Amino acid sequence: MNILLLVAHGSRREESNLEVVSLSKQMAKFNSNPFDKVMPAFLEFASPSIPEAIEKCNAMGANSVTVLPYFLSAGVHIDRDIPSEVENASQDFPNLNITIANYFGSREEIAEILMKTALDIK
Amino acid sequence: MNILLLVAHGSRREESNLEVVSLSKQMAKFNSNPFDKVMPAFLEFASPSIPEAIEKCNAMGANSVTVLPYFLSAGVHIDRDIPSEVENASQDFPNLNITIANYFGSREEIAEILMKTALDIK
Repeated sequence: MNILLLVAHGSRREESNLEVVSLSKQMAKFNSNPFDKVMPAFLEFASPSIPEAIEKCNAMGANSVTVLPYFLSAGVHIDRDIPSEVENASQDFPNLNITIANYFGSREEIAEILMKTALDIK
Repeated sequence: MNILLLVAHGSRREESNLEVVSLSKQMAKFNSNPFDKVMPAFLEFASPSIPEAIEKCNAMGANSVTVLPYFLSAGVHIDRDIPSEVENASQDFPNLNITIANYFGSREEIAEILMKTALDIK
């Protein structure tokens, strides 16, 4: 079983966390989706945390987890915090193959979507 | 003259701010771009700040500025901080028509791009 973890920073503002939950549900609906499940996880301020989510994946019988960082830029969370949490989880669950995907902000499409956003003024 | 301000949070990490500068340059190159200029601005930790950028737009002879928030979720920065800075600038430069576009994270394309990011594992 392959599980995709959509990892967001997390916010003290519950609506922001719910946006991430909603996004993970949208992603789960794609036909081109090769994952058996898409789940949200949060670095801070919300649950499940990354270790909690990975523990849950293991309990569900996953053999592969892809961690997808929903971050705009490659700061300390991308360079250090997420890899460190994933490394710890890998030691706890040695049978789980955990991969970290590139961060969202690395995508080339972003400039084009930003321009569309600028032109769609309400 | 119409100017687009790409407003990011700003980071203590200079590389993250440079990603935003680079993005604003990419956006300026689009053929479909109706703006005479695309400039970066930052809420915190980097310059120009929003007031500095708007002052510069005014000095350049702009009559219209579109503020485009490069944020993933609609937190306090979107609800309060950016509108407040724009409101103050509007009072300082009454001849400038300043509009705030929707925030980046509101775009429907994001779920699809996230799925592409997940599948493009290096």
